[in-house]
Amino acid sequence: MGSDDDIGPKDAGSGFAGKQLGRFVAASVWDAVPSNVRHEGKRSLLNFLGCSLGVAQTPPIEMAMRVLLPTSGSDRVTVIGRSERLDPLGAAFLNAISANLLDYDDTHLRTVIHPTAPVAPASLALAEQRGLSGQAVLHAFILGAEVECRIGNAVSPGHYARGWHITSTCGVFGSAAASAKLLGLDAVQTWHALGIAASQSAGLVENLPSAAKNVSVGNAARNGLFAALLAEQGYTAAPAAIEGALGWARAMGDTPDVQEIVGGLGERWELLSNTYKPYPCGIVFHTVIDACIALRNEHALKATDIAEVTVSGSQLLLDRGDRPTTNSRDARVSISHCAAVSFVTGSAGLKQFEDAAVSDPAVAALRGRVNSVLDSSLPVGAAIVAVRTTDGRSLRTTVLHAKGSMEHPLSDAELAEKVRDLARHGSFRGDVEAIIAAAWEIDALTTINPLVASLSA
Amino acid sequence: MGSDDDIGPKDAGSGFAGKQLGRFVAASVWDAVPSNVRHEGKRSLLNFLGCSLGVAQTPPIEMAMRVLLPTSGSDRVTVIGRSERLDPLGAAFLNAISANLLDYDDTHLRTVIHPTAPVAPASLALAEQRGLSGQAVLHAFILGAEVECRIGNAVSPGHYARGWHITSTCGVFGSAAASAKLLGLDAVQTWHALGIAASQSAGLVENLPSAAKNVSVGNAARNGLFAALLAEQGYTAAPAAIEGALGWARAMGDTPDVQEIVGGLGERWELLSNTYKPYPCGIVFHTVIDACIALRNEHALKATDIAEVTVSGSQLLLDRGDRPTTNSRDARVSISHCAAVSFVTGSAGLKQFEDAAVSDPAVAALRGRVNSVLDSSLPVGAAIVAVRTTDGRSLRTTVLHAKGSMEHPLSDAELAEKVRDLARHGSFRGDVEAIIAAAWEIDALTTINPLVASLSA
Repeated sequence: MGSDDDIGPKDAGSGFAGKQLGRFVAASVWDAVPSNVRHEGKRSLLNFLGCSLGVAQTPPIEMAMRVLLPTSGSDRVTVIGRSERLDPLGAAFLNAISANLLDYDDTHLRTVIHPTAPVAPASLALAEQRGLSGQAVLHAFILGAEVECRIGNAVSPGHYARGWHITSTCGVFGSAAASAKLLGLDAVQTWHALGIAASQSAGLVENLPSAAKNVSVGNAARNGLFAALLAEQGYTAAPAAIEGALGWARAMGDTPDVQEIVGGLGERWELLSNTYKPYPCGIVFHTVIDACIALRNEHALKATDIAEVTVSGSQLLLDRGDRPTTNSRDARVSISHCAAVSFVTGSAGLKQFEDAAVSDPAVAALRGRVNSVLDSSLPVGAAIVAVRTTDGRSLRTTVLHAKGSMEHPLSDAELAEKVRDLARHGSFRGDVEAIIAAAWEIDALTTINPLVASLSA
Repeated sequence: MGSDDDIGPKDAGSGFAGKQLGRFVAASVWDAVPSNVRHEGKRSLLNFLGCSLGVAQTPPIEMAMRVLLPTSGSDRVTVIGRSERLDPLGAAFLNAISANLLDYDDTHLRTVIHPTAPVAPASLALAEQRGLSGQAVLHAFILGAEVECRIGNAVSPGHYARGWHITSTCGVFGSAAASAKLLGLDAVQTWHALGIAASQSAGLVENLPSAAKNVSVGNAARNGLFAALLAEQGYTAAPAAIEGALGWARAMGDTPDVQEIVGGLGERWELLSNTYKPYPCGIVFHTVIDACIALRNEHALKATDIAEVTVSGSQLLLDRGDRPTTNSRDARVSISHCAAVSFVTGSAGLKQFEDAAVSDPAVAALRGRVNSVLDSSLPVGAAIVAVRTTDGRSLRTTVLHAKGSMEHPLSDAELAEKVRDLARHGSFRGDVEAIIAAAWEIDALTTINPLVASLSA
């Protein structure tokens, strides 16, 4: 694609954000990726595979499949947990939906991005189609997650607060970067791919409690790959598509801190801040659940003992969790459901967010006795749960760091167990142990094809 | 899909914008569409067909085709001016790109939306696939353009000013509405389709001088159709996806004036404000061109007579036209090129925006002598061009309404001649006269298939 000068106006000083990202991605070599980053990448991919397996047979996947199958090209790759195959763009879309559908996927805490759902599906689809190695997939995924989270850092928290579903809006950059790496695009082509991704960035917080959320998450994966394929053919973007005066970041509500995007590339790695949920609901509710289960266990509380529950947390908790709860999807972003079901059942696993649990009379009744209030002294993610019992006691506990957080991470063994649970939940009949073993050794796979083949139904 | 209650929380009073649009689109009957609106719809479609034919063999179309062909499903429809066929999603994408590529398509002046490029391609693709009538296509297109422009009205001018390429961002709603109508979706499904479209709305002004612009225009057409297909399968969206607190309009920079969306539906028609360009460049430059050509003719000016040109206009003109000019794409959004080439050649047709004209030494030299200044007393779209000649004269003229504007519209005959010019420009070998005749009688076509078949290369 010629020299950097091809792209348009010259940049001065430190240069365009997309240009520096393009250089970083194109120049990155596997040997320079630290071993702890590689391991976190494997954990992310393993968690991703489990999440997709857990919902592969559910209606949102079936419905989208009915639209995608007749519009799929004939050169097809694996759709996780399904017997049907789709072209790489379609497979990227559907595998991203399934990864995120339960809200059980990974979380980059600073931005609340779910990094893997938009990025890994594009990487797996491309790698399967072209017979690439597991190391290539892991490397591309790590770079994609890095780009996605750095761009998210640069516009947080105003971007999400304005109504942007950051996993969707930043995910498209991660998918574009990872796809560019696997396609072997040069620095300038990668820069263009990121700029094309900017013009495809979309997804609204308002739509989170609906299937429209799936569409923006799926599009992030699909359109990032699409951007890279177009850049490979010669499509271009504006030099400052990300940070320019009429570009992505300003249009989407924040002036970006460009240094967050380009500072210390290759030195600090955002994937080291990735976390994995023990509970299949919004990450901001996890301290609430931990607190409720702790109170329940400590005081042997029954739901009928509880007159009132008051959850105190940051504005972010209230913004995300203050919704009516009428179905499984609502429940996963509902403070009152998370609290009620934790008190009633003592746990908050997959079953506790199914429709049956949502309509359980004891849970529904207790939901009506849960209030949430702002405590702006609490750090984001922390929660205080206070209970007034029917016999007049006042109980309370504070949880600063949830299980699954950076401070209390899931172990590798717990992650593997989560994958087993998800596969059972999804009635997956394949060899889960072989999948788990292959994921831990993905960088040793000469081609990704045997692993992805084992993911089909 | 059951009753309106299925969608979620009840609305009070006048109700959700998407709900009212969904009802309007689903309930609309052809007999209630006024004849002047029908005729304007035909003019829009004719202009659209010409624009696509004009560029069907150019590199941006070829490059995108190379990405789309291998990922296209086998049930394929016509791509305008091409021998290859694509599935309806791919054809919608590519035909929208070609319609808009020259910046020669139609313009809804209040919003500066190009209404037809994102809407007509989805309608034609669906109708061809399903053997629908020309009347069905024209009806769906008129409704789609109505929805698109009303949503644009509700967020203008702040939306564009923030960096959103409004043709792309609002076009997806128009494509969704038109596609929903052709699919026979009910009011609630159409409401959902519009909400799903909201989570796919994207496209940046920063990227206008690059191929990334094509991607967002193509996606508007493709993703609107995709939204309708997903809604048909049962996908849902939030009730207030458009106007909600964390919804489309607020995220994208404006609080919508919902009355602009829903007021007088079926009574006033936005397509009656559609206009067609006599010059293949940004509409805001047309008064500049008219003024330059008028000065040149009146004073028999040669380029070498001109020491300096000063273009005065509104902030909008300066925002859109103050760019360096190094290629054909830049030229179509450049004040200095529009002025210079008009003075040098006395016209501003397709040839005047080709690379050869951009690099013509006389044009390039004169571009360097063109200044643009704000005159906030001028209405948007108007321009004053002042010339200082090398022999010391000061000449000036003011143009309030350009050729092609509402005040000086192109006649039907001029539109048809524009289509002939475009077809020649694109070296189209089909029967242009038959296409023009069929477009004027599109509502009499039992199926759209003969017309679309005649558009292939």
